[in-house]
Amino acid sequence: MIVALTGGTGGAKLIEGLAAEIDPAELTIICNTGDDEIFQGLHVSPDIDTITYTLGGLIDTAKGWGIKDDTFNALQQLHGLGADTWFKLGDRDLATHITRTRFLNEGLTLSDATDRIRRALGVKSIILPMSDERVETRVETQQGQISFQEFFVRERWSPEVTAIRFDGVESSHPGPGVLEAIHHAEAIIVCPSNPITSIGPIVAVPGIRSAFTETAAAVVGVRPLIGSTAISGPAHKLMKASGWKASALGVAQCYSDFLDTFLIAEEDKDLVEAIAAANIETACTNIRMTTLADKRRLAREVLALVEK
Amino acid sequence: MIVALTGGTGGAKLIEGLAAEIDPAELTIICNTGDDEIFQGLHVSPDIDTITYTLGGLIDTAKGWGIKDDTFNALQQLHGLGADTWFKLGDRDLATHITRTRFLNEGLTLSDATDRIRRALGVKSIILPMSDERVETRVETQQGQISFQEFFVRERWSPEVTAIRFDGVESSHPGPGVLEAIHHAEAIIVCPSNPITSIGPIVAVPGIRSAFTETAAAVVGVRPLIGSTAISGPAHKLMKASGWKASALGVAQCYSDFLDTFLIAEEDKDLVEAIAAANIETACTNIRMTTLADKRRLAREVLALVEK
Repeated sequence: MIVALTGGTGGAKLIEGLAAEIDPAELTIICNTGDDEIFQGLHVSPDIDTITYTLGGLIDTAKGWGIKDDTFNALQQLHGLGADTWFKLGDRDLATHITRTRFLNEGLTLSDATDRIRRALGVKSIILPMSDERVETRVETQQGQISFQEFFVRERWSPEVTAIRFDGVESSHPGPGVLEAIHHAEAIIVCPSNPITSIGPIVAVPGIRSAFTETAAAVVGVRPLIGSTAISGPAHKLMKASGWKASALGVAQCYSDFLDTFLIAEEDKDLVEAIAAANIETACTNIRMTTLADKRRLAREVLALVEK
Repeated sequence: MIVALTGGTGGAKLIEGLAAEIDPAELTIICNTGDDEIFQGLHVSPDIDTITYTLGGLIDTAKGWGIKDDTFNALQQLHGLGADTWFKLGDRDLATHITRTRFLNEGLTLSDATDRIRRALGVKSIILPMSDERVETRVETQQGQISFQEFFVRERWSPEVTAIRFDGVESSHPGPGVLEAIHHAEAIIVCPSNPITSIGPIVAVPGIRSAFTETAAAVVGVRPLIGSTAISGPAHKLMKASGWKASALGVAQCYSDFLDTFLIAEEDKDLVEAIAAANIETACTNIRMTTLADKRRLAREVLALVEK
């Protein structure tokens, strides 16, 4: 069993490659839920949805989120009813949130709801929320504290960030199956997701980080930045706000207690020695993923590192 | 102020005519909520929605329910997720149910939620739920007890009906403004809605039926049947199951304690004398409403009876 840690868009590309290269039933994905938010009274789990849609062949690949060929008629009507509609919920996408909310209101856990939805959509890989308890990523800006989605989507990550917090994380517990998956994994892959707000909340859940440091399995990471810039999104900005260097070295230091091997961009090969000082091996490659062929090639390179 | 009692489709046609003939702000509508049901965890109020959409110019006139030009992509996706989708919720329509459910979960009453939604949709008439408490119309069939929507939509009103019940009605109270509207009304119009499952639940709420019998205002009804058949829907079937004759006379007897004048179909004029025996005046006309011109003509005839 291969275990992958991921957030949304960036990580989903590698997940798609991995699921194409190995038996998808042999892949267990531990997913960030710190970005979850209630919109219009519906429980939205953006990262779980992106991974589920990607593996179910439903993802809108152009946008990197939502369902392909979706319509936005409910959202337009919600706007007319006076609702805030900066979070773009498509009509087909809404079905997921309506179903998840109903399951949760009926007393199911987020893990159960996630499992039922992925099975209904024909996804063979297991998708595990990092926790069934509510952990909320909060972004402190000079204009006040906002949720991650407010920062990322509504404000288009433009505010200056002074700190990141994961509200509720101290009292949270790993979701069912999470620690077992880590302990029984042949290899663990840290996907190229935001180290602060995608991988950060997962390893902040008490018990998960120590399970990674203790596991005998190889832990291989793929870095989400080239030079000092994220391929997409605000990773570099949030790295700096959290006191890390916005570079491959910063990410390596961030993961230094559990990462064995780090796959970085060729552009960053001058950092190999500095990363080696943190006791992490490196390999350099082209880490950009545009086509499915790119995703599969990078997945194969990661799997080769795992076997080594 | 004119007060109208109504259910969904049939009554909505006369409501549309009335709102075109008088200042719509002078029209208060008391709406059946016995058909309300939770679908996919969302609170659906079919009759309130039909009236709101009709007055907001959104109604799908061909179907008599839902929003015109709506799409059903969320429903199709819900079906794929394993949900029961016999109740046809359109994407734009869903926005109403999502908004209402959110309002109710935030602690608003059904009256408040209804008022906010109708204002957002530009509806000038006041729409009052008969009660803010849950009253459930239950249909007893030989195969067991089902909700009104299950009977009407899922089973296409085919089962044999043995009885109708309004669960929760004994302990319910009239919604805010309902008794005041009746007491201050210049006239009360009983729309051509199902006497058993549309008008029946309204007048079963303790206090409403007696307010009708006590009011000084003229109470004018328009009958929903021609001969022994409903113009649409199962009114005739439910009349019989409730022990009434499925005829203009049966409806008149059903309403005899509060109706002053009854507008019936020309085809039923041989019943005028029998209805007079129940101390109700009658007028005969063409009660079919297809075009807006039909609806306005019938509204004018009703308003003329009110003035008389």
